[in-house]
Amino acid sequence: GYLTPKNKKGNYSVTPVLSKMLSLMQVVNYDMESHSGNVIVNGAKVPIRYREETINALKESYEKKLAISNVLKIEYDSEFMNIYTICSLTVNGVFLKNKIPVIPYYGGVLEIKPDKNRFIEAIAYEGTSLNPHEVFFNKGDGKKYILAGISKVPLSANEQFRAITEKLNWNSVIEIGRPNNDICGVRVEKCMFGITTIGGVNPFSNVNSLGIPIEVKTLHKSMDYSNLTNYEEI
Amino acid sequence: GYLTPKNKKGNYSVTPVLSKMLSLMQVVNYDMESHSGNVIVNGAKVPIRYREETINALKESYEKKLAISNVLKIEYDSEFMNIYTICSLTVNGVFLKNKIPVIPYYGGVLEIKPDKNRFIEAIAYEGTSLNPHEVFFNKGDGKKYILAGISKVPLSANEQFRAITEKLNWNSVIEIGRPNNDICGVRVEKCMFGITTIGGVNPFSNVNSLGIPIEVKTLHKSMDYSNLTNYEEI
Repeated sequence: GYLTPKNKKGNYSVTPVLSKMLSLMQVVNYDMESHSGNVIVNGAKVPIRYREETINALKESYEKKLAISNVLKIEYDSEFMNIYTICSLTVNGVFLKNKIPVIPYYGGVLEIKPDKNRFIEAIAYEGTSLNPHEVFFNKGDGKKYILAGISKVPLSANEQFRAITEKLNWNSVIEIGRPNNDICGVRVEKCMFGITTIGGVNPFSNVNSLGIPIEVKTLHKSMDYSNLTNYEEI
Repeated sequence: GYLTPKNKKGNYSVTPVLSKMLSLMQVVNYDMESHSGNVIVNGAKVPIRYREETINALKESYEKKLAISNVLKIEYDSEFMNIYTICSLTVNGVFLKNKIPVIPYYGGVLEIKPDKNRFIEAIAYEGTSLNPHEVFFNKGDGKKYILAGISKVPLSANEQFRAITEKLNWNSVIEIGRPNNDICGVRVEKCMFGITTIGGVNPFSNVNSLGIPIEVKTLHKSMDYSNLTNYEEI
């Protein structure tokens, strides 16, 4: 039949998003002292006529502590506003720069509950070609259902990990698990512990949940932190 | 903050779709001689006013050999037509019944090309809570970009596998790979070979690509084969 290829040639392969993430992590050189250096950003494009509602929605996410950091970037052209928020992978990059391997593991939709947060959908980064935060973008509302991730940290790095998290002082790591235990419904193996991180796209989810047309590109590019602006100044 | 749970309790976990698939495979008892027994079906719901266009699109998929088998089921209620097509997991179930483990591995979007079919997106069943064919449903057009899967077969079962595929005579396995090689861009390990199977939802993709509103549920339920009707008789 026509579905049987005539020639076997070429060297295609489906690249797991994990490969892309590990490469991007190496680009991060954000310095916690000088607040400068490369961070990874997610990008979003919104028609310019929605400017006011969009800015209000972005600020709302920030006030609800569902933005990773207190900075973002907005650029305007004649038709669109282009918005960039820090991608949570930046945090993995900061740890890598400090010689702590914090391996991205799962991405998905985290249900926020008073008693226990848990993932209602999740995909392993190693097993997918498309970033779970793009897969599930429409399932997040940026409030009760947020885009989040699990990373794994070797137990040996426990103290260093906690020290850097505190020093970084971003709103990224929202939960730290115990070794060989579930964290928000995702099991992490022995000698490692899981951490739950907020996705950088949640302010975009909040915009999307208002019915504003928004086009999102996660793991978009790197940008110098010093180019970003405080949420309170947009 | 309110994102830190107050009590650690409960025993939630994100279930990989692979677990659900392995359970459903066990329900299959389709008999190749008598053409009866349980098969797994995907379900779709279409508003009844699109009846004629929908039936034409389903038949088109069948004629283009992008339906798994020559049978399906359509039920009508006052508002909707409910359509059921055989799910490709049924084939894995038939092999299991014949004591050959054919393990579901990846699902995704396969680009059909004259020289070589390849996946443009793929997710490992073990690493996702949501079936890749639901994740990527809107990326398939049921023609050039079809929903397809990769399963893995132990090399030792090679001859038996081919004999049963031939006897079953469904339009499901469209490509058989070599051990320790890529198949359509997905690598399969040593001592196993990969097979590419057409997803049962492709006739629904064809309906969807016409802009007809359609709601799809993959891995929907089991149904006796004898309740299904030939595409030519709908």
